[in-house]
Amino acid sequence: MPGVPPTRFVFLGPEATFTEQALRTIPAAERGIRTPMRSVPEALDAVRGGDADAALVPLENSIGGAVGVTLDEMIDGAPLVITREVVIPVEFVLGTRAGVSLDRIQTVAAHPQASTQCRGWLQAHLPAATVVDVLSNSTAAIAAAEGEYDAAICAPIGATRYKLSVLADKIADHSDAVTRFVLVTRPGPPPEPTGDDVTSLAVFISHDRVGALLAVLMELAVRGVNLTRIESRPTGEQLGRYAFFLDCSGHVADGRLGEALQGLRRVCAEVRFLGSYPRHRWATESDRPVPAPAGLSDVDYADAAAWLARLRAGDLA
Amino acid sequence: MPGVPPTRFVFLGPEATFTEQALRTIPAAERGIRTPMRSVPEALDAVRGGDADAALVPLENSIGGAVGVTLDEMIDGAPLVITREVVIPVEFVLGTRAGVSLDRIQTVAAHPQASTQCRGWLQAHLPAATVVDVLSNSTAAIAAAEGEYDAAICAPIGATRYKLSVLADKIADHSDAVTRFVLVTRPGPPPEPTGDDVTSLAVFISHDRVGALLAVLMELAVRGVNLTRIESRPTGEQLGRYAFFLDCSGHVADGRLGEALQGLRRVCAEVRFLGSYPRHRWATESDRPVPAPAGLSDVDYADAAAWLARLRAGDLA
Amino acid sequence: MPGVPPTRFVFLGPEATFTEQALRTIPAAERGIRTPMRSVPEALDAVRGGDADAALVPLENSIGGAVGVTLDEMIDGAPLVITREVVIPVEFVLGTRAGVSLDRIQTVAAHPQASTQCRGWLQAHLPAATVVDVLSNSTAAIAAAEGEYDAAICAPIGATRYKLSVLADKIADHSDAVTRFVLVTRPGPPPEPTGDDVTSLAVFISHDRVGALLAVLMELAVRGVNLTRIESRPTGEQLGRYAFFLDCSGHVADGRLGEALQGLRRVCAEVRFLGSYPRHRWATESDRPVPAPAGLSDVDYADAAAWLARLRAGDLA
Amino acid sequence: MPGVPPTRFVFLGPEATFTEQALRTIPAAERGIRTPMRSVPEALDAVRGGDADAALVPLENSIGGAVGVTLDEMIDGAPLVITREVVIPVEFVLGTRAGVSLDRIQTVAAHPQASTQCRGWLQAHLPAATVVDVLSNSTAAIAAAEGEYDAAICAPIGATRYKLSVLADKIADHSDAVTRFVLVTRPGPPPEPTGDDVTSLAVFISHDRVGALLAVLMELAVRGVNLTRIESRPTGEQLGRYAFFLDCSGHVADGRLGEALQGLRRVCAEVRFLGSYPRHRWATESDRPVPAPAGLSDVDYADAAAWLARLRAGDLA
Repeated sequence: MPGVPPTRFVFLGPEATFTEQALRTIPAAERGIRTPMRSVPEALDAVRGGDADAALVPLENSIGGAVGVTLDEMIDGAPLVITREVVIPVEFVLGTRAGVSLDRIQTVAAHPQASTQCRGWLQAHLPAATVVDVLSNSTAAIAAAEGEYDAAICAPIGATRYKLSVLADKIADHSDAVTRFVLVTRPGPPPEPTGDDVTSLAVFISHDRVGALLAVLMELAVRGVNLTRIESRPTGEQLGRYAFFLDCSGHVADGRLGEALQGLRRVCAEVRFLGSYPRHRWATESDRPVPAPAGLSDVDYADAAAWLARLRAGDLA
Repeated sequence: MPGVPPTRFVFLGPEATFTEQALRTIPAAERGIRTPMRSVPEALDAVRGGDADAALVPLENSIGGAVGVTLDEMIDGAPLVITREVVIPVEFVLGTRAGVSLDRIQTVAAHPQASTQCRGWLQAHLPAATVVDVLSNSTAAIAAAEGEYDAAICAPIGATRYKLSVLADKIADHSDAVTRFVLVTRPGPPPEPTGDDVTSLAVFISHDRVGALLAVLMELAVRGVNLTRIESRPTGEQLGRYAFFLDCSGHVADGRLGEALQGLRRVCAEVRFLGSYPRHRWATESDRPVPAPAGLSDVDYADAAAWLARLRAGDLA
Repeated sequence: MPGVPPTRFVFLGPEATFTEQALRTIPAAERGIRTPMRSVPEALDAVRGGDADAALVPLENSIGGAVGVTLDEMIDGAPLVITREVVIPVEFVLGTRAGVSLDRIQTVAAHPQASTQCRGWLQAHLPAATVVDVLSNSTAAIAAAEGEYDAAICAPIGATRYKLSVLADKIADHSDAVTRFVLVTRPGPPPEPTGDDVTSLAVFISHDRVGALLAVLMELAVRGVNLTRIESRPTGEQLGRYAFFLDCSGHVADGRLGEALQGLRRVCAEVRFLGSYPRHRWATESDRPVPAPAGLSDVDYADAAAWLARLRAGDLA
Repeated sequence: MPGVPPTRFVFLGPEATFTEQALRTIPAAERGIRTPMRSVPEALDAVRGGDADAALVPLENSIGGAVGVTLDEMIDGAPLVITREVVIPVEFVLGTRAGVSLDRIQTVAAHPQASTQCRGWLQAHLPAATVVDVLSNSTAAIAAAEGEYDAAICAPIGATRYKLSVLADKIADHSDAVTRFVLVTRPGPPPEPTGDDVTSLAVFISHDRVGALLAVLMELAVRGVNLTRIESRPTGEQLGRYAFFLDCSGHVADGRLGEALQGLRRVCAEVRFLGSYPRHRWATESDRPVPAPAGLSDVDYADAAAWLARLRAGDLA
């Protein structure tokens, strides 16, 4: 129901991974019901089917790139919208049972992506240890907690949940790596504009239009709308059309983004609106709205519309 | 008074030149009062001051280029708008008193631009004649009629008015040369759109904006608005801003031209609207409206606006 | 050594997955040594270190999107180049030990991405079966072969290698899904142009340049170079610069792509050339070169260069 | 002969007008032979035929706009090039015979453009005087000198030549009005680049290419080449092609202008090079070269070309 905050949350499981950690930064989710799902499609279907109010799923990873399945699933089936983004640092820890010291570790359980991201640290600190692939970060934590392996690479929440000692934290090679999650709900009025918002879109372009992507970007550029993310989708070519996922600065309620959306609607084969929501801001960031470029604020749009109305009426005074 | 057709016309004189010839192609002017004025500024001031309802003045010449003074004067002072364009072929004739044959012509009176445009014909047919500069095409006709010179290069209307015999017609070297005139009135609601209209603008751009002209053209291109004429004005640089005179395809009442105008309003230092009016069509041309490019018709604009309204309301069905 | 075909190949393991299947479509690899590696970074490092001549690694998946780690690893460290792409259909099969029929299957081993891609088929044909996550497609095949589970979702090569019966093939929900792999080597002269080539790039843009992506696309568009893939990288914002991975039509040896590359070099903070190589063509596709757009062939480039040389010499004849 | 400075100059006559005044700012012309010609075509033909080495003709006027005939004549016939521009203020004076005071002036001889440009001054200072149109500024001066009329509006050089007293100077209503002249010669190597040059072009575009002007501007914008003047030519439409006269910042010998010219050559139906020459600078202006935008200097062009050569050779070190 529009206006009623969600209470039943699903997230990409298993529990005690970065996704749960991200979900718990949302106050309503911290108070509500949180259910892990086996896959992104199942999480989204739970929302579509009304079994959940909202799903938190990963959208992109600063190391591994886009998590394409989320977007593919969003545009495949009944409409869903993003109402919030959560960005958290990917801070892996090395967890062990109490009393295990670094020099005694011979086996380390880790999800393959996790061990890849901590490769430098492992070579420096555990060059002799055997890394064993497991299916998730929380599987790794459980296996270490149960003594199956000597240690686990996992999320901080995994170490806490399974009562592991953290022998080392922030062990990822890229210390600034982040993962971006989105909270997805059934369609409804978008969150209020904050002055620093993101709008996500999927646009489809007919195959035979030369310079089609340039045309899309011009629709945005002419209205001063910045792209913060773009990703082409590879199936396009075979299906006779190209698809792009775009994140734009601005809110569907803004004058300039509204006009840009109308422009895309006219030039693209199809435009799927995937939501307008506040841009994630770090605690160290200002909360101030981002001013529109000169001539592109809502006031400028209103002024130009009033001027056009006068011209059409023959009033040039 | 809006809606009341003009009855008192002024035009750039003297009489019996191409401007009067052009004016008389307008039925209301053929029935109304037609007064020649000494200069374009005086003709426009007569309209501004209410002494005339409309002024016919030259805007460009396919040989001599733009007639800059007309545009300069339009943007300097109280607003005026173009409500009609008239394009006529520049068909010079050689006129003489009755009985003068080509081989007896020793002197030819002509305005310097006229003799320049007929240079090839004169070299071929009157290589020995002396060409005498006079101040206008009708001055030339009068001088020949009074016997001051043996012949005159003048407009067909000049030969008729001063009862000259036409020894040769269409003597200009460029047989397709045309002159374009505009009918200028005080501001009022523009003529109804015909589906094949022109909108004239003057746009001013701040000096320090790199790529400013490109930005202007993008505002037009993104809405599929074609430029049919463009002319930069040379004073700009010293005054710290550039000016361009533009003729665009479309009517201020059209969705796409309206949006393009709003865009120009936002990005330019100043936009002066100089009128929307039917494009001149030759008798051999079709009267059919020109269809809008795909996605840019008024229907497409209305569809996109309705879609945006639905998005903003949260209706993605 | 340039010109010497590679003989020692590594690929993203384990063996008997789609990557090995793709590798074996390359004749030199079919004849050479093929060694599976635990991760993309390890595969690439084997090439960098000289332990292998070439690595086959996944670049993108038509369902799951870009495999970001491959590109990240290519631009991180000593230069490597792509010399070939291989695109194969993602055709999952359901494999069992001999004698197991569909109605007896209670457990199915599958990599999570594989079971997600076959979700519809599983719901239709094995609604009651339990799907068990395993670490790779070949792990699934081995587990079924050893009787640990009743069936496996795996690549055709996995069923063959581990002697499974194929109860159903092409069970992915998107029958046109493909995966794209690239063969990566140490730098050397690129393969000869074929007239239908791809050039891969990573471009980096300073944070503070408004419209930077538009500027990049204009460099390409002005030379008629099409983008076949684009992906922004999320780390950019924090590092003060944006990165994009681009696949362009054309070869570094082509006139127009050469000029476009020079343009990117001038406007971007950094451009990493990742290789020019023949576009993958399906057996049903024509082998004919793709003609350049009007005015953009190598002949046009040569003509324009010759004309400029004449102008500079003052020869306008 | 290339390298030999011109000695025989022609100019648009009659003598003692602004054109002669402009010509005499050129040292070689001050020392050489200066012959007035009746018209721009005759002046250019004198150069084409070898009867003169150079012609000084008007190109544009800050009040009256472009002097189209000059450009039309340049592109019609054997090639000619501009080697120099001269910009002078349009400073009209009121000249009389000795002893005539302002309150005694009843008739003023003036070229129609001159009286139009001094309209405000005339209304303020000589509201009762009759203005008589004459054919040129020098005709006006001669007529006043001979006592035919009481006063003349003319160029300063006209007052000096015909020994008129200057009763008032700088009487034009727009005190910053200027006229721009160009010195035209037969083709030869262009003047050396100065770092602040202008290149004049005529470009022709096929009628059926949508967005053709935008394509032209993009060729320039991508290389950071600024347009300082643009004028479309009205004959285009009937002939099935559009023409534009462009003045660009830069010199044909510059890397970026050279590449832009090659781009125009490829996308336009025809490009006519009309010369590269130093931009006119006022005495108060700095003589320093204008630095190229970031990434677009000749050094950047050379760097990018060298980088491309390395890529093509497979050298990515």
